[in-house]
Amino acid sequence: MSELFERLQPYLDRGMAIKAALTLFDWDNETLAPACASEKTAKIMGNLSGEYYRATINDEVRDLLAQLSTPEEKEKLSDTEKAIVKKMNKEYEQLEKIPANEYQAFRELLTKSAQIWAKAKENNDFSAFAPTLNEIVDYQKRFAEYTKKPGMSLYDTMLDQNEEGILEKDLDPFFEKIRTAVVPLLKKVMERNDKIDKSYNNRCYPIDVQKKFCRFLAEYIGFDFEKGVMAESAHPFTTNMHNSDVRITNHFYEKNLESAMFSVIHEGGHALYEMGVADELTLTAVGGGTSMGVHESQSRFYENILGRSEAFWKPLFGKLKETYPEQLADVEQNDFILGINKAEPGPIRTEADELTYPLHIMVRYEIEKLLISGKIKVDDLPQIWNEKYKEYLGVTPKNDKEGVLQDVHWSGGSFGYFPSYAIGNAVAAQIYAFMHKKVKVAECLETGNLEPIRKYLCKHIHQYGSTKNMNELLIGMTGESLNVDYYIDYLTKKYTKLYHIEE
Amino acid sequence: MSELFERLQPYLDRGMAIKAALTLFDWDNETLAPACASEKTAKIMGNLSGEYYRATINDEVRDLLAQLSTPEEKEKLSDTEKAIVKKMNKEYEQLEKIPANEYQAFRELLTKSAQIWAKAKENNDFSAFAPTLNEIVDYQKRFAEYTKKPGMSLYDTMLDQNEEGILEKDLDPFFEKIRTAVVPLLKKVMERNDKIDKSYNNRCYPIDVQKKFCRFLAEYIGFDFEKGVMAESAHPFTTNMHNSDVRITNHFYEKNLESAMFSVIHEGGHALYEMGVADELTLTAVGGGTSMGVHESQSRFYENILGRSEAFWKPLFGKLKETYPEQLADVEQNDFILGINKAEPGPIRTEADELTYPLHIMVRYEIEKLLISGKIKVDDLPQIWNEKYKEYLGVTPKNDKEGVLQDVHWSGGSFGYFPSYAIGNAVAAQIYAFMHKKVKVAECLETGNLEPIRKYLCKHIHQYGSTKNMNELLIGMTGESLNVDYYIDYLTKKYTKLYHIEE
Repeated sequence: MSELFERLQPYLDRGMAIKAALTLFDWDNETLAPACASEKTAKIMGNLSGEYYRATINDEVRDLLAQLSTPEEKEKLSDTEKAIVKKMNKEYEQLEKIPANEYQAFRELLTKSAQIWAKAKENNDFSAFAPTLNEIVDYQKRFAEYTKKPGMSLYDTMLDQNEEGILEKDLDPFFEKIRTAVVPLLKKVMERNDKIDKSYNNRCYPIDVQKKFCRFLAEYIGFDFEKGVMAESAHPFTTNMHNSDVRITNHFYEKNLESAMFSVIHEGGHALYEMGVADELTLTAVGGGTSMGVHESQSRFYENILGRSEAFWKPLFGKLKETYPEQLADVEQNDFILGINKAEPGPIRTEADELTYPLHIMVRYEIEKLLISGKIKVDDLPQIWNEKYKEYLGVTPKNDKEGVLQDVHWSGGSFGYFPSYAIGNAVAAQIYAFMHKKVKVAECLETGNLEPIRKYLCKHIHQYGSTKNMNELLIGMTGESLNVDYYIDYLTKKYTKLYHIEE
Repeated sequence: MSELFERLQPYLDRGMAIKAALTLFDWDNETLAPACASEKTAKIMGNLSGEYYRATINDEVRDLLAQLSTPEEKEKLSDTEKAIVKKMNKEYEQLEKIPANEYQAFRELLTKSAQIWAKAKENNDFSAFAPTLNEIVDYQKRFAEYTKKPGMSLYDTMLDQNEEGILEKDLDPFFEKIRTAVVPLLKKVMERNDKIDKSYNNRCYPIDVQKKFCRFLAEYIGFDFEKGVMAESAHPFTTNMHNSDVRITNHFYEKNLESAMFSVIHEGGHALYEMGVADELTLTAVGGGTSMGVHESQSRFYENILGRSEAFWKPLFGKLKETYPEQLADVEQNDFILGINKAEPGPIRTEADELTYPLHIMVRYEIEKLLISGKIKVDDLPQIWNEKYKEYLGVTPKNDKEGVLQDVHWSGGSFGYFPSYAIGNAVAAQIYAFMHKKVKVAECLETGNLEPIRKYLCKHIHQYGSTKNMNELLIGMTGESLNVDYYIDYLTKKYTKLYHIEE
């Protein structure tokens, strides 16, 4: 037992508790808090962020971390403790360089900005959001400037915070490969698209019935309602206090069957990750999922690779038809499988199919690079957004509401985050290619027993929390680091087969 | 502007933010958190309590408070700042004397004890709760020992924390007067009780219809849904983060019309108090209601004095009948008024009518005095509980579930708290006696315009937060300090009239 680590423990516990409180406030703001609360609650959250800063950034913590990082002290630590020290060192280095008052002011700005963005989006008025976004970009650029490592660009610094070690030099070829494969494939798909009729999706599906079916789906994939809750919010998301309190939200549309169904499978995938973290790790600094990329790999694995497969719906399609006997009377299982996989370019990322999805991410990646490097300004965003959508997806958003204002991320200060979605898709495909050799995935799905799949993911990914980064997990599981070829292969095979495209 | 107060401000803000976080966790635990979360969440809350302690109890705060309490520094403070310093001094004195580790361990114990009590109650097994209750009593006695002022008993110390300056010497005659008046009045009432038929109350009232009507009632009395939310929990309660985020809960029973209706009026009364606190005070140490006694005066004023009056239902009874046309087909307004005021001794405090209610409190007051003074032990509680119920109310609880295990309070460490309910009744009656001279209460109720009443309470009570204590508020409003005679007079007149008792 390390005496030094024991002295560090109270600081860790304090930081953990304050973080959990901030998580709960975020959840509450999105799901329940009354309309007029936000301004005063922002003050509370700003103070809590300051408190987190004080609990984490102080002379004693710095000294303890420095001593714990020496070889002789490191030796006394368990693997978990080593991972905690490593994680804290990283966080310390980043936070230490950001002045406390700037950090707190930024957090306060963020709580307000969510509402400003929401209102601007509602009113389709980018100019109402632009000044706030400008402030956010300024803060984030300044923070990246403070913490930037040698040889990294500002945007690299943001990328590295989201996915350790995955920088522009990795993502440029990553997206280039995707573009080269997906754009021509999409063209062929589009030529055959008129054969797919998914008009069933926009019939009337009563919301209370949808809610019941979504709850069933959550349980079906393994979401444990003793350790989690489900609520509603404007946009579905997942959050957690610890591995026994994991929360997902959904949003229901009466005239959209698929939206809430695939959202609950997606968020359920995130939730299973957090529920699967080892008890030893939860409530520690390494107790959550390791990165957004790996998190998205889990949600997308469930949503797309499993949830949109024929095998998944084999034991479920009958139940779905029983649930909506009139709405789905004329829909056969095969029509449904084609429908839920129909690829068609559109302006909205969250409504995108599996094939066009990475193109939406590519647009954001390229725009963020330009914005953070200063090549474009916030005011240029609407125009460049629309140009890139035209170029890669062949569509022009009707207005900023379905264009540059569509995503919440930037209002939350998240830059360098969007690539995680595409990384997640690629990781999911890589895991899937390998898992096949160890688990009879199709059999599990066809018999409605998803436990072996969940256990396999828990064993190789979930349980580790963030003691390993993405590439460490991938190497441990598949023998190689991130390789986008699996993703391209998966998309090509799936869509070639689905659309009967000759290769 | 006081330079010293400016230096104190960050500590105040930190304490306020952490308290708000604890409030949110409490709310979440009661309304939403998943079943398995409590143990790990208890750790988070324990750490937050420790953090609150650290933010509030430290050398700098002590020095600042000491300096701010000198006459020359006091002079520089605004009235609000003076009230904050006074409140902080009081809290500091109390907290300083309690060792941080004991305080944190106690808070952790409390988070667990709520579940232990709930389970013991469910299983009607007092022995499963007794060891935990013993620990809680030990902590609270120890804490009272640490903070006790000269000449006060341990129980006085607890009473004083709940209602400043109201001690055993005040409450002994207070309850004696109530007993002397209520017991014989109840006897007369019971002789005439067979004339009142309230069987309507236990017909079938669909819960979704109840919910809608309760929401209407909340709005009717002035609850602002832009600044508040409503949810469900095992027992109704009110909490708040600040004056623009006030939350009430309710609990619905299909076969009980009155329960949820009067709960929402009661909790609504609490909520109006918190919504009415001045903006200048909210989010400060004096930003909440001044005491539980005054809080209960507001809830009971709305629930009983207004909500169970004939005038209140005059504009509403028609709507109630329209809402439940079949269930209330044979019920006239006069039957309903008699029904909602029917007095009948029973074992459960929360189901008690206005007349027997103070007797339930008297039982608890006397038991707490015995327990805290060491004259009885935790193991004696079930027996003495039943004896006192027999003596004062003439009923014997069937089991501990409807006896000593019925209330959550002791599991939450609340001793000296129960008297607040009776104090609240008395304060409400005193306010009512005086308000009559200034506001046309009956006219407001009969015309369905409750705003003058709410504004009057806001002006004389709500806006002050806790800058004034109960007696200061009462003297400012009515010219005299707490006087139980108004309450006795109110009960006597009301029940004499209602039951046609000759005096």
